[in-house]
Amino acid sequence: MSTNVGIAGLGVVAQGLLELVRSNADQLNVIAGKNLSVKRLASRRLRDGVDLSEIVFSTDLDDLLNDDELDLVIELIGGTDAAYDLIKATLERGRGVITANKAVLATHGNELLDIAREHDVPLAFEAAVAGGIPIIAALKTRFPANDINWLTGIINGTCIYILTAMAHDGVAFEDALQNAQELGYAEADPTFDVGGMDAAQKLAILVALAFDVPIEIDSVYCEGIQDITIEDIQHADELGYSIKHLAIGRQEEDLVEMRVHPALVPKDNLLAKVNDVENAVQLGTANTGVLRFTGPGAGGHATASSVIADLTNIASGLYRHPGIGGGSIRVRSIGDVSSAFFLNIAAADRPGVIASIGETLARHSISIASMIQKKEEVIRSVDNEIIPVVILTNTVVERELDQALEELESLADIAAPIKKIRVVDLT
Amino acid sequence: MSTNVGIAGLGVVAQGLLELVRSNADQLNVIAGKNLSVKRLASRRLRDGVDLSEIVFSTDLDDLLNDDELDLVIELIGGTDAAYDLIKATLERGRGVITANKAVLATHGNELLDIAREHDVPLAFEAAVAGGIPIIAALKTRFPANDINWLTGIINGTCIYILTAMAHDGVAFEDALQNAQELGYAEADPTFDVGGMDAAQKLAILVALAFDVPIEIDSVYCEGIQDITIEDIQHADELGYSIKHLAIGRQEEDLVEMRVHPALVPKDNLLAKVNDVENAVQLGTANTGVLRFTGPGAGGHATASSVIADLTNIASGLYRHPGIGGGSIRVRSIGDVSSAFFLNIAAADRPGVIASIGETLARHSISIASMIQKKEEVIRSVDNEIIPVVILTNTVVERELDQALEELESLADIAAPIKKIRVVDLT
Repeated sequence: MSTNVGIAGLGVVAQGLLELVRSNADQLNVIAGKNLSVKRLASRRLRDGVDLSEIVFSTDLDDLLNDDELDLVIELIGGTDAAYDLIKATLERGRGVITANKAVLATHGNELLDIAREHDVPLAFEAAVAGGIPIIAALKTRFPANDINWLTGIINGTCIYILTAMAHDGVAFEDALQNAQELGYAEADPTFDVGGMDAAQKLAILVALAFDVPIEIDSVYCEGIQDITIEDIQHADELGYSIKHLAIGRQEEDLVEMRVHPALVPKDNLLAKVNDVENAVQLGTANTGVLRFTGPGAGGHATASSVIADLTNIASGLYRHPGIGGGSIRVRSIGDVSSAFFLNIAAADRPGVIASIGETLARHSISIASMIQKKEEVIRSVDNEIIPVVILTNTVVERELDQALEELESLADIAAPIKKIRVVDLT
Repeated sequence: MSTNVGIAGLGVVAQGLLELVRSNADQLNVIAGKNLSVKRLASRRLRDGVDLSEIVFSTDLDDLLNDDELDLVIELIGGTDAAYDLIKATLERGRGVITANKAVLATHGNELLDIAREHDVPLAFEAAVAGGIPIIAALKTRFPANDINWLTGIINGTCIYILTAMAHDGVAFEDALQNAQELGYAEADPTFDVGGMDAAQKLAILVALAFDVPIEIDSVYCEGIQDITIEDIQHADELGYSIKHLAIGRQEEDLVEMRVHPALVPKDNLLAKVNDVENAVQLGTANTGVLRFTGPGAGGHATASSVIADLTNIASGLYRHPGIGGGSIRVRSIGDVSSAFFLNIAAADRPGVIASIGETLARHSISIASMIQKKEEVIRSVDNEIIPVVILTNTVVERELDQALEELESLADIAAPIKKIRVVDLT
């Protein structure tokens, strides 16, 4: 018996996949229980130095659809339009698909999984989230959906690289970003990563798996790291926290929380130790406590290894459809989420300013857990000297905090906007 | 369709299993794709307060064998003799087995897995190692065996609890052990745990899965934590290390290393952060870098969750036989293993002693990475004052080090035995 495979795309992951499949052929065949054979590859263009011997190459994705010898297609072209068309048409022809494409899943995943179930063919995507970490398998096969209370993750390599560089080397956001681009850790247009959309797409997939709900990318609250400064990182450090870009999902009663934003993480938490381009996912469960997974979030071989895990599982009959889409989703809006908050208030260095900040917060039932007033960090000096007042609040509903901040920003002695970063307690 | 289950044992894990199966029945049935039903339970004695309604209880394990309605048996009695007989007979009758019993697998696993393969019935054991961490599934389905270079783990809860208490609270080994016993983290006879045998059994299973070799418990080098002192922990701390009880497996060319012993771990490594009763496993892979898993190592519900994962996977046809036993094993003896070493040499405080230590080590090509000489820590004062000389060596083959230590121990100015703790670099 054999499983004939077609590959779409010839980027880093596809190249890694070809290398690994060739160098591990015998062992993979044993695991799969049959002969795994890459028959065909379609990509817009050839690449020098890639060995395509015994593989039919073409530049037309339709050739993958029209080759009746193929049992499944591995989609590694990325993006949403062409990938969506290819995956849909492949599934509709009764063939399985493996994809590493979080974007197409985040935008069309519910429909594609319905088609896969309807035709009873696999649609597998271990490689789509957190590269080499086997988190999709864990969520699919390990936990009844009602067992998971929350998940937190560091799942965007660009953000973690930039925040690590800012924290360790004291370089500003723009310089860290440029450095990341030069090293290939950030795209030429980094907006998608540093703005949080990449993490949001991955979170929508993880949440759907964790809580057996549909994928709803539009309901993910999304903030990037563009406004994080070295001063924020230093102030957080003084208070005992690191700043990381987190993806957070939580289910409470019937409400699902999905949010991606910078957050203060206690320094002794595992997430605070995740640096450079490592990824991490933590699961807070009812029955198994907190489980933590870390590993490489990207890289051709790491991601290709996840594709291969899908491939051998499908070939040996170990595929199971995910619970995604089985339920409905009611999303808790960010205004209704409770957190502690880190605030940086630029205030005039005048008697009574601190008192009026405290009074305004108190009127909204917000208490102050810690405060740092930095006399030495004078920001500007027109009329008055302006100093940063750094506050860590106790837990408060965000809408209530926002009302308090609005009032504070209207005061003559306080400059708008007040910097606000959430503190994560799901650890 | 339904899967009828029999349970052997009524301890903490069995009770947790009964609770979870009852409270999650609907969802588990959906995941399994059939009705999961606990029909029968056999245990030496009943326990008060355990709800056994709709379950046939008996005190005779043979009743599980003779009930032809059962599709599989979950073995939770522990130990090796009765568990071995029950598992073997169940498999031979063509029924699957789930076990949480590392001891029976470590001693009879190869034979039992052969019988399971022969009768083509499942023998699943996610719960046997590292409680709630899905490490068995990851090793079985995620990595081709040639992808894993090494694994390191903290997989004995008693050892980690005691070492944490010694490090954090400054209590001596005996007091920490007594405290662990009072809290139920250590057995009345703690030898099996603190002597390392529990971790050795688990390691033999992990190594067999990771490298597709037979389970060979007798080849695991095993040291416990009985000789670790607070002074060792403090000296290690000064050098930038924590002391943990580690299980280490490594494959190099055709040689497999299996060892369980206390070890110095760099403080910034994840393993150094694992405390109390958490477990951790790290996998060093060729293609996916280093993957780290942490979670609860024990506990009724956590371990029962692993049993349930096996149960739903088997019921829905997702079981795969492990590669264990497929190859042969050639073990590297501990004398041939290379490590850096932490040494604590009790030496007379006399001129020339340090020089003769350095000279002896140098003659064996052992260089000194760090040295602390603690004038203030005088140990005793008969004839001479004895001071501890703490040395961190560079990497050296253990047999060579042992020869050097033997020479040093024969010197008049040095007290035997010299304390030696390995430093782990597989992180």
